[in-house]
Amino acid sequence: MTLRVAVAGASGYAGGEILRLLASHPGVDIGVLAAHSSAGLTLGQVQPQLTSLAGRTLTETSAAALGGHDIVFLALPHGQSGALARELGDDTLVIDCGADFRLRDPVEWKRFYGTEHAGTWPYGLPEMPGARDELKGANRVAVPGCYPTAVTLALSPAHAARLVEPEVVVVAASGTSGAGRRAGPHLLGSEVMGSMTPYGVGGGHRHTPELVQNLSLVAGEPVTVSFTPTLAPMPRGILATCSARLRPHVAADGGLDEVREVFEAAYADEPFVRLLPRGQWPSTGAVLGSNTVQVQVAVDPAARRLVCVSAIDNLTKGTAGGAVQSMNVALGLPEGLGLPMNGVAP
Amino acid sequence: MTLRVAVAGASGYAGGEILRLLASHPGVDIGVLAAHSSAGLTLGQVQPQLTSLAGRTLTETSAAALGGHDIVFLALPHGQSGALARELGDDTLVIDCGADFRLRDPVEWKRFYGTEHAGTWPYGLPEMPGARDELKGANRVAVPGCYPTAVTLALSPAHAARLVEPEVVVVAASGTSGAGRRAGPHLLGSEVMGSMTPYGVGGGHRHTPELVQNLSLVAGEPVTVSFTPTLAPMPRGILATCSARLRPHVAADGGLDEVREVFEAAYADEPFVRLLPRGQWPSTGAVLGSNTVQVQVAVDPAARRLVCVSAIDNLTKGTAGGAVQSMNVALGLPEGLGLPMNGVAP
Amino acid sequence: MTLRVAVAGASGYAGGEILRLLASHPGVDIGVLAAHSSAGLTLGQVQPQLTSLAGRTLTETSAAALGGHDIVFLALPHGQSGALARELGDDTLVIDCGADFRLRDPVEWKRFYGTEHAGTWPYGLPEMPGARDELKGANRVAVPGCYPTAVTLALSPAHAARLVEPEVVVVAASGTSGAGRRAGPHLLGSEVMGSMTPYGVGGGHRHTPELVQNLSLVAGEPVTVSFTPTLAPMPRGILATCSARLRPHVAADGGLDEVREVFEAAYADEPFVRLLPRGQWPSTGAVLGSNTVQVQVAVDPAARRLVCVSAIDNLTKGTAGGAVQSMNVALGLPEGLGLPMNGVAP
Amino acid sequence: MTLRVAVAGASGYAGGEILRLLASHPGVDIGVLAAHSSAGLTLGQVQPQLTSLAGRTLTETSAAALGGHDIVFLALPHGQSGALARELGDDTLVIDCGADFRLRDPVEWKRFYGTEHAGTWPYGLPEMPGARDELKGANRVAVPGCYPTAVTLALSPAHAARLVEPEVVVVAASGTSGAGRRAGPHLLGSEVMGSMTPYGVGGGHRHTPELVQNLSLVAGEPVTVSFTPTLAPMPRGILATCSARLRPHVAADGGLDEVREVFEAAYADEPFVRLLPRGQWPSTGAVLGSNTVQVQVAVDPAARRLVCVSAIDNLTKGTAGGAVQSMNVALGLPEGLGLPMNGVAP
Repeated sequence: MTLRVAVAGASGYAGGEILRLLASHPGVDIGVLAAHSSAGLTLGQVQPQLTSLAGRTLTETSAAALGGHDIVFLALPHGQSGALARELGDDTLVIDCGADFRLRDPVEWKRFYGTEHAGTWPYGLPEMPGARDELKGANRVAVPGCYPTAVTLALSPAHAARLVEPEVVVVAASGTSGAGRRAGPHLLGSEVMGSMTPYGVGGGHRHTPELVQNLSLVAGEPVTVSFTPTLAPMPRGILATCSARLRPHVAADGGLDEVREVFEAAYADEPFVRLLPRGQWPSTGAVLGSNTVQVQVAVDPAARRLVCVSAIDNLTKGTAGGAVQSMNVALGLPEGLGLPMNGVAP
Repeated sequence: MTLRVAVAGASGYAGGEILRLLASHPGVDIGVLAAHSSAGLTLGQVQPQLTSLAGRTLTETSAAALGGHDIVFLALPHGQSGALARELGDDTLVIDCGADFRLRDPVEWKRFYGTEHAGTWPYGLPEMPGARDELKGANRVAVPGCYPTAVTLALSPAHAARLVEPEVVVVAASGTSGAGRRAGPHLLGSEVMGSMTPYGVGGGHRHTPELVQNLSLVAGEPVTVSFTPTLAPMPRGILATCSARLRPHVAADGGLDEVREVFEAAYADEPFVRLLPRGQWPSTGAVLGSNTVQVQVAVDPAARRLVCVSAIDNLTKGTAGGAVQSMNVALGLPEGLGLPMNGVAP
Repeated sequence: MTLRVAVAGASGYAGGEILRLLASHPGVDIGVLAAHSSAGLTLGQVQPQLTSLAGRTLTETSAAALGGHDIVFLALPHGQSGALARELGDDTLVIDCGADFRLRDPVEWKRFYGTEHAGTWPYGLPEMPGARDELKGANRVAVPGCYPTAVTLALSPAHAARLVEPEVVVVAASGTSGAGRRAGPHLLGSEVMGSMTPYGVGGGHRHTPELVQNLSLVAGEPVTVSFTPTLAPMPRGILATCSARLRPHVAADGGLDEVREVFEAAYADEPFVRLLPRGQWPSTGAVLGSNTVQVQVAVDPAARRLVCVSAIDNLTKGTAGGAVQSMNVALGLPEGLGLPMNGVAP
Repeated sequence: MTLRVAVAGASGYAGGEILRLLASHPGVDIGVLAAHSSAGLTLGQVQPQLTSLAGRTLTETSAAALGGHDIVFLALPHGQSGALARELGDDTLVIDCGADFRLRDPVEWKRFYGTEHAGTWPYGLPEMPGARDELKGANRVAVPGCYPTAVTLALSPAHAARLVEPEVVVVAASGTSGAGRRAGPHLLGSEVMGSMTPYGVGGGHRHTPELVQNLSLVAGEPVTVSFTPTLAPMPRGILATCSARLRPHVAADGGLDEVREVFEAAYADEPFVRLLPRGQWPSTGAVLGSNTVQVQVAVDPAARRLVCVSAIDNLTKGTAGGAVQSMNVALGLPEGLGLPMNGVAP
């Protein structure tokens, strides 16, 4: 028996990627595709890559249109998920790709988003300690931000094993699709090609409190995160370079063996986390279109820091893939169903 | 019952893409992966995107190693397929992604490749008139060149319906992976990013005789092709812009209706050819990683020419996807098995 | 004595490039910088690359603001130059980078632009036969479109020497800055990177009548042009691939000698046209930021066509460089003053 | 009176950029162009962007060929400058773009380069405290590495004013030209476009000891540097994101005023360092082809870190521009002679 699924925000980048994955997912049937300004158009007009669904028509977003599906994916601007979700019954699995239900602390929410906190839902990062159990059987899922997915998976084992101090520095490069489809002059191809630039420097990016929340939960102590996102001249991909001081008990020379053991143990059974062999480094190109996270670690003996690097496709594992993976877990389906493990490269 | 498949040239771009597709093909089991200078390495070292096969070891290329499989894909430099294929039995389906068995005319072969002609195999472009029947049950398949795939599908209906004169002008842009993985200074990222340049201008490109062969077969008369390939700053994709004079009987004003009818009829039942709705134009980004060909046509009343444009992923429909599609046809499997129809975009 | 120059449209791509060139031009002094929605901002806020002028403030565009300068560059949307120019006195050299005064035929203007024809000014392509003389001492200059610059210089010698038939096929790839700075979703970096797509297919692009006008003037007979522009994943550059049938009197085998002689003679004294040595092909990367046009030719004996390829930087030789070069000619300054001949590569 | 200049390594990326700058430098005359495997070719064949010098022939590299010039630029692989320089007289200004003479500590040299230390020359970063005086009248100059140029200018004022602790974390993205012209498969366009990947992680990159040397000199105490370089999909540019803990005496809230005062004072008279206005961030696109360094700073109150970001063109300010600037200083010419301040953007 297949489950009927609806997607709100089907005209955006996240919505398009959700549909690409669902179109080859054997357990679901694609129902209503909802959009806002594109309502009335065919999907082929706004998502020309989705050939198999090109003739489908986009409908206006409303709880009525989305109701009657077993699963509803919300890929909407921040702040719009709460009202919709309340109108969808408890027997509907609602998977929100926006930020609304990710944070636990209402104060942090208000500080970064400026509105009242809508609540907290089970967190759609199954690889994070404890998350998979919480997701099983859930009817509401908050899909993590793309940066938090990359950074949390790069650093968690080190924090859980208390290898590093709780002061983390993260510099991450993201492809432009992370900024969504809303055209701004600074996102024009002419501006971004051949250029790199940072943004939200100094702790201002909205994924910062989510990073702090995740790493603090894993570490069991408050972790500070200096986070600098940068915009890279590529459509997709996040490369997260994360580092922290080694705790005194970790040997800096030869400490890599100890570190690798920790990471190997943490990810031994995770199908979508690939700890690379020594000497091989993550690249965003290698994970394009896949749900795989590549992770690698190094110890810098002179600076006494652990450097953890991860690469993901921000739209797949970073958004739509993580959403479908969480759907599978919530519904008790095989976790990897419909999710590509191999990237489209070169 | 699954079929066992081997791939020779597994360390190259074509070989990697064949493996990406086979890894999610439900009808096959991946056996020997053969390479040359990379023999002894793991697949993960040379194709880091193929996470699901990362631990497999590459073996030296030989008929002995490839023997004992039901299907063998050859993704080798030109001129190396013949000797290998002769040693593989008639009960093995051999699918050659090289040029060796594409041309029918030994003189043209010698003129463009300089060696003796190895022979002619059934042509792996099922959408070309007559080709599908020839492929059914075949045990040898010559996969078309990437440019001929794009150009033949853009123009065939027009030639078959005698809408245009037999003098064709083709200018096509290709991503850099079309040049293969062998590093040359002109293919360095520093050289190709931000730059476009033509090559093989004036009829010198080796795909020219294949273009002439295909279009002449379809037209039923000799067709000349002025072909200019250009190198575009993208890893994958071919955009082929093809034009020819309208024959006098075709009305230039309003001729588009007549032309579209011809193309709609030609491709009505082709799952991998998408004739776009009026006003929408092919883009290589929309077909990335998919086996889809996007086609669109326009009539220029002032120049009295028909302009046909197609977009493919040179490694998928242009090579590995076409190869797997032909394998499916040859073996009597559903033609689209294991082949993505939706592109990875943006 | 230096001349005072004003620039209207200083916040756009063309305006920015004009200012980059003028900033190192020894004969001019930069005066008023006018803009529309950016008026009141500093130049550094909208053109962060123009460090030497970063503190200058943009003023509202008006004839009053632009008056009192010796030279005024107009880099405005089509249709806005006429009214402004009428208010600027005859002692002001007005150089219009828009389309308003390029076409001679009011019917063609109306057909492609939909408004009344504003007039025809001396044409700012000094390398075109007759144009340099017309520019000397002129007080009004219409800078050519970027595609017409590339195509006219690629084909003119062949038409002037009657080497080819008057039916031309042009396929040209352009960087995204050709579309200007106005953000449209299809020009987002996420959409254009890794993708090529055509537009204005079938004779609809507004540069088509300008191409026809130029080539017909040079040929001395009506020339038809089948023109297909394509959008390439790079910020700057045009690669124009142009071809036409050889006239019967030109030998196809060995005809290259004859053709090269014609081109060598045509461009022997042109400082900004570089006919490349045999075997070397134009690339847009090599002319980035320079006023140079690279040209190369080939004869295809099988198709009996001449293929002429040119590469320019659409913003430099294709717009701002051509404008400054024309200014130099009009004012009797050395033609190359302030114009870089060498590209920024790789 | 113009000075005669020779360039060794004229076929490489650094050599080509040196020639681009020298070609428009009013004080020099370009003499011998030396290369290794390209000797005998014309410059136009290997550096097609250098139109103004296209007909010059490359000669074999030797002290004899380079002798008799007033100035010699060496753009050679590491380890080859020492022997050549010894044969060039003291009346020749030798400017080495390689690493050989950058480090002061022979032990660090040997640890990172494996050979005997050749010596230490005046350091070609005029903006570094003390360096300009040392360069005046020098006849030997060691041009800094590209990363050290970007990082030193981003952080120096903070260290000099003791705003931060001496533990620095640097993550920098570089365009591919930083790896030079030697083709490696991982530098193919197919591999780098659309992908980001780190290298030399954990303190292994050869610019690390130069970073430590520079920052320690400026700080007056030993500084540790955790340095992670990443390869970005663009031909040119370095974006360096650098951070360190604020010292306790710096107020985290409102500390930005104090920090900006320090940076404004440090760079008030530096023509090539542009401290951007608040709210504007460096981008590599904005400095393309120019000798400008864009710098911006932020204070992260939650993490109590200062974040300093700089953008340069790795081939211009990062190599050739820095070299020409140092030449100007050494010879007593105006420091900015022949050096573009404005970038080629978009």
